[in-house]
Amino acid sequence: MSVSPVRFGIIGCAYIARKLSRAINLSQNAVLQAVGSRSLEKAEKFAAENGFPASAKIYGSYEAILDDPEVDAVYVPLPTSLHAKWAVLAAQKKKHLLLEKPVALSAEEFDTIVEACESNGVQFMDSTMWMHHPRTVKMKEFLSNPDLFGELKSVHSSFTYAADPDFLENDIRVKPELDALGALGDAGWYCVRSILWAADFRLPKTVVAFRNPVFNKAGVIMACGASLFWEDGKLATFECSFLSNLTMDLTAIGTNGTLNLHDYVIPLEEKKASYFTGTKTGFDELVTAWDSKPSEHIVNTDLPQEGLMVEEFSRLVASIKGDGASKLEEKWPTFSRKTQLVLDAVKASIENGFEAVEVMG
Amino acid sequence: MSVSPVRFGIIGCAYIARKLSRAINLSQNAVLQAVGSRSLEKAEKFAAENGFPASAKIYGSYEAILDDPEVDAVYVPLPTSLHAKWAVLAAQKKKHLLLEKPVALSAEEFDTIVEACESNGVQFMDSTMWMHHPRTVKMKEFLSNPDLFGELKSVHSSFTYAADPDFLENDIRVKPELDALGALGDAGWYCVRSILWAADFRLPKTVVAFRNPVFNKAGVIMACGASLFWEDGKLATFECSFLSNLTMDLTAIGTNGTLNLHDYVIPLEEKKASYFTGTKTGFDELVTAWDSKPSEHIVNTDLPQEGLMVEEFSRLVASIKGDGASKLEEKWPTFSRKTQLVLDAVKASIENGFEAVEVMG
Repeated sequence: MSVSPVRFGIIGCAYIARKLSRAINLSQNAVLQAVGSRSLEKAEKFAAENGFPASAKIYGSYEAILDDPEVDAVYVPLPTSLHAKWAVLAAQKKKHLLLEKPVALSAEEFDTIVEACESNGVQFMDSTMWMHHPRTVKMKEFLSNPDLFGELKSVHSSFTYAADPDFLENDIRVKPELDALGALGDAGWYCVRSILWAADFRLPKTVVAFRNPVFNKAGVIMACGASLFWEDGKLATFECSFLSNLTMDLTAIGTNGTLNLHDYVIPLEEKKASYFTGTKTGFDELVTAWDSKPSEHIVNTDLPQEGLMVEEFSRLVASIKGDGASKLEEKWPTFSRKTQLVLDAVKASIENGFEAVEVMG
Repeated sequence: MSVSPVRFGIIGCAYIARKLSRAINLSQNAVLQAVGSRSLEKAEKFAAENGFPASAKIYGSYEAILDDPEVDAVYVPLPTSLHAKWAVLAAQKKKHLLLEKPVALSAEEFDTIVEACESNGVQFMDSTMWMHHPRTVKMKEFLSNPDLFGELKSVHSSFTYAADPDFLENDIRVKPELDALGALGDAGWYCVRSILWAADFRLPKTVVAFRNPVFNKAGVIMACGASLFWEDGKLATFECSFLSNLTMDLTAIGTNGTLNLHDYVIPLEEKKASYFTGTKTGFDELVTAWDSKPSEHIVNTDLPQEGLMVEEFSRLVASIKGDGASKLEEKWPTFSRKTQLVLDAVKASIENGFEAVEVMG
């Protein structure tokens, strides 16, 4: 059975929306239907530069997209402080919702979005692209294998990048009224997501923020980190920063195995990604070298991870549209909510003088 | 000018002493002169199995080595609780001292060793072998380069290994009366050393232990970790464990660069070691891949790192012996002391319910 492609409206011409527009064009089950900006000229320019088909609608407002009956789903890359308003409105207008991260300023705020999606029968997914890379599936197979990996004991995740002076002055992610969570909401989102992903989305019990967060003059976090503790003894640490060289390390250590990669958020290459595993690694007899070495695994993909994300989201949307009986896939808002809950706890720990904060499930 | 080789006595037939005996045999400026054990038979067996020359003395006590005028230096791999006694005695007998880590049960105890070494004019060095690998020199050049690496912002170090049931029951490192610091003193020593090394041996101001240390029935640490904070905003984290798969990751992130390696304590191969660096790494225009990738650097060495350690130590000893005017190289006991100070702070933080502990310089 062939289904008609999911018709996307892009709400706002953010830089990242260029990547998503390309991904929609690359995907097999989605099309660019509309783009809207508060400036019609900006929307026209964006559409012209990002491969929108001639039939696409160009709007001078966000509302117009939501009122367009030919738009099935919207991608919302607006600043975080605008998420709740536009995500809820989109849901009310029955638009399925692909929302940029962080999904909200708090889990409480995010809950209003989820309620709107559920009560209006629209699918929610956040735009955490690496979750959709086939490498992620392969790595999860490794982590789930009791012989190869065993029980997860610890995770360490870093996502830092050296923002340029213009970013540090003008980007939405340094403005308290736009993206108040700063580096924690941006880079830290991926760190926390990677940790929860490795931990099968079991929430930590306690979060302790690192004691040296960096704030800009406006009080927005430029760099921070935390340690996370589970009741079963697992631990995780992460650091996120706008002020250090680009690094995206993820290490998960189990009783029997170790997983390592250095590009978990965005692979070094679009179509080829690798990761490293070691199982029951040990030393030679005199402990002068390793008797078994970690091995590299390469995963190829024709479609980049953002295209695979669009396809996965569109599959869910098409299924709901198609038969009316398909349920919403709850795992995606659940993943988002748990990620946001941990961000909230890190923020609370920073605000409470780095005291331990219980994560509220 | 050719100098006669430094004549080593091995105090105790620990497992690790086999590696050191080989290293002494491989080195150009040291020889195996004597081995002593509380059991003469054990010493004889050890000498026979570890390439001791026929001329080597075999003793049924540690004291006998210290009384042998043909022994210039001793290697002491005894359990940590015996370090202070035997290290001080060795120094008093004018034996230069290569001491296994952790150097003592506390920095205060270590100070008695250093005082004995200084007042008796003998060189001290701890047996942290990776410090002597030429890779370490190369990596330090990278970290010291303002363009390639910039200012150090964070370090993450892991050293875990899955000890077997026999180790967990019987090894000296699980016995409170022998190696009371457990995994912290053993694997954690390397983590802390690597962090201090990356930080040019500037001590952190504050240490906060992770909240989930694992103890054995006797109360010895089997796994723990901590976060370390410097006054300039730098941070480091480490974890050490006897209960997770072998992992030895070191990542240092600077404003301009990133250093990564996965075998910093013991290289995967004896004669060839690698590390990865990235400088001003960034993304392509659409942020779908990296525009510049980290690169691997390979460092070859004919002599394994433990052999290079023996040679470096022996050079210092020969220099002191040779002209009587050469001073003791103070950096080695200083490195040891700072490492021990941080271990002390981690231990104190664990004992104080994971509160922040100031590192006492």
